[in-house]
Amino acid sequence: MSVTAPQGFRAAGVVAGLKDNGGRDVALVVNDGPSRAAAGVFTRNRVRAAPVEWTEQVLKGGRLRAVVLNSGGANACTGAPGFQDTHATAEAVAEALEDSAGEVAVCSTGLIGVRLPMEVLLPGVGKAAAELSRGDGGLAAADAIRTTDTVAKIAFRQGEGGYRIGAMAKGAGMLAPSLATMLCVITTDADLPAEALDRALRAATAVTLDRLDTDGCMSTNDTVLLLASGAAGVVPGEEEFTALVTDVCADLTRQLLVDAEGASKAIAIEVVGAASEDDAVTVGRSIARNDLLKCAIHGEDPNWGRVLSAVGTTDAVFEPDRINVAINGVWVCRNGSSGDDRDRVDLRPRDVTITVDLSAGSASATIWTTDLTAEYVHENSAYST
Amino acid sequence: MSVTAPQGFRAAGVVAGLKDNGGRDVALVVNDGPSRAAAGVFTRNRVRAAPVEWTEQVLKGGRLRAVVLNSGGANACTGAPGFQDTHATAEAVAEALEDSAGEVAVCSTGLIGVRLPMEVLLPGVGKAAAELSRGDGGLAAADAIRTTDTVAKIAFRQGEGGYRIGAMAKGAGMLAPSLATMLCVITTDADLPAEALDRALRAATAVTLDRLDTDGCMSTNDTVLLLASGAAGVVPGEEEFTALVTDVCADLTRQLLVDAEGASKAIAIEVVGAASEDDAVTVGRSIARNDLLKCAIHGEDPNWGRVLSAVGTTDAVFEPDRINVAINGVWVCRNGSSGDDRDRVDLRPRDVTITVDLSAGSASATIWTTDLTAEYVHENSAYST
Repeated sequence: MSVTAPQGFRAAGVVAGLKDNGGRDVALVVNDGPSRAAAGVFTRNRVRAAPVEWTEQVLKGGRLRAVVLNSGGANACTGAPGFQDTHATAEAVAEALEDSAGEVAVCSTGLIGVRLPMEVLLPGVGKAAAELSRGDGGLAAADAIRTTDTVAKIAFRQGEGGYRIGAMAKGAGMLAPSLATMLCVITTDADLPAEALDRALRAATAVTLDRLDTDGCMSTNDTVLLLASGAAGVVPGEEEFTALVTDVCADLTRQLLVDAEGASKAIAIEVVGAASEDDAVTVGRSIARNDLLKCAIHGEDPNWGRVLSAVGTTDAVFEPDRINVAINGVWVCRNGSSGDDRDRVDLRPRDVTITVDLSAGSASATIWTTDLTAEYVHENSAYST
Repeated sequence: MSVTAPQGFRAAGVVAGLKDNGGRDVALVVNDGPSRAAAGVFTRNRVRAAPVEWTEQVLKGGRLRAVVLNSGGANACTGAPGFQDTHATAEAVAEALEDSAGEVAVCSTGLIGVRLPMEVLLPGVGKAAAELSRGDGGLAAADAIRTTDTVAKIAFRQGEGGYRIGAMAKGAGMLAPSLATMLCVITTDADLPAEALDRALRAATAVTLDRLDTDGCMSTNDTVLLLASGAAGVVPGEEEFTALVTDVCADLTRQLLVDAEGASKAIAIEVVGAASEDDAVTVGRSIARNDLLKCAIHGEDPNWGRVLSAVGTTDAVFEPDRINVAINGVWVCRNGSSGDDRDRVDLRPRDVTITVDLSAGSASATIWTTDLTAEYVHENSAYST
């Protein structure tokens, strides 16, 4: 029920030998058509990995025959040689499929600043091409893109008229402003042109994956791709299709959130009563990035003072003495001062909801984050990524 | 050698009973003149504690007779009643000194959102007034403003012609954009008008205390005050005086840095080759707030990829392929790619210097931060501040 759930797609995930742990590390997703329409969104980091530069160029044509992905190396900050490596990887896929490298997307994830061992990667690409299948390939591909992910992330939805959307994603740390070290491939057998796919993907990610902010760190490699084969012969309404893609992205967002490195809490920060959606997002992100608050939630301390302190660093429209804050439903702060009894807040469940009412308008947004734990520190001080 | 080192000042630090641990918690610093010229800088957080609102108003007159400080409660997010508590505290000092509350600054630090127990605080103010001295008072006052600080922070300098500057500060966490939960009182027996003190203090803090960014969290209570008694009868040149105040503030910055909560590394981020000083500060802060990099430094991993990734999130002027990064003197990244052997970097010492050359101009700035440790998480999840 991964990227091969829709008709017209084959996939594979193989062991090339890039990863020290001997796990799968090269994935290939192939669109057999009849359509090849595709769209993508990328990290907003100005330091961008070679595969991001390459894939953005490829997508200007609005078509993708295949996506090749590797874990075990980000191919970021590797200069012109790194870009040539990405190009060679796409060429290897094109050769195996007897197709054009100009319609092959490349995604990489892993350590920044190190060249990929092409003598290991290219044979892996050939191996993946030889193992392409609709049966097991989808799950194997989802497994092959994992880095510190403890589980493979996949999603599946069925639309009106019988078309399908399938997806796989990876990402466990560095989840921030714009999609984070997140690689995500979404497939559909619906028949829509590239422009419609692009609109749907941007609308969907803007309110889901883009609002996941686990540690404020933005990756050099984030890529989310949407490929349509048209094999189901269904042309969905754009609104319905966008809603379904959004639903898939929300599902993946949730999976990424609960598997974030070292996290013990999944925190939803709902900002309501904002003067604009931008204000709501700004305030939500500021709270999501407040290490002191994230420590407090880890310690199950409903420390609303740290919430207000984070709100106060933004330029959003608000008056400090009109802010209300609820933690897991208890309004512990009313009008900028102490509200209901904080002892009534139960912070033992994994899911935590912090609601901030700015009393400045009617816009709202939700940002998802995690608590800050000793395990996060351990994982990111012992593991070079 | 604290705030009472200059002539014309008395101080005290007493146990009022605000702190659970039975330690000193109320400090009083009194300027006996002949001058009462004073200046102050405050947090830029828009959520400001009552004592900050009060003290900023008081300073509009450019004169301070006394500063009363308490740990054990921040008096932030306490509404109008909290402001009345601050006013009453200033009145208690005025009464004890037979002077005007309009020249009494108030500073508080501790948990946000809780009213101060005035029945405990006011007797403490009286007790402090009764114990004012030049001898032991300075050190006792520095001790009384500690929260999670493991040591009292004080500084002392002597200027040309024999005038003196003394200082005390507290702050261990939440050290960020603008002075953090940092309370700092600087005294001098030089004779300068309030306007000159204000210029010197702003210039000094802008390049020292304001560039300490341990966890990106900005306090509601930050206050730095500079009081001049004129008792030495020396009128220093403004440039020399500013340099000396800057030196005192740099000394305190260093003390705050090495005592930051849970830190095992003191990291200086030197940004050079920037198109403007603002760019240098922006880039330095972005690096200082990158939790992944702070974890890597904790793990003694010279992960320059995380440095570039942080630089890439800013809007500073730079080209990714012209950035150079040195860690403890080894240029591990040249022209945006791998440079000298990272195994040559020795990250065992407590002091770590990360130099980032943007190759975009000649401006520079240094930001100081710490690593991110399991101890930081523990201290801030177990301790409600």
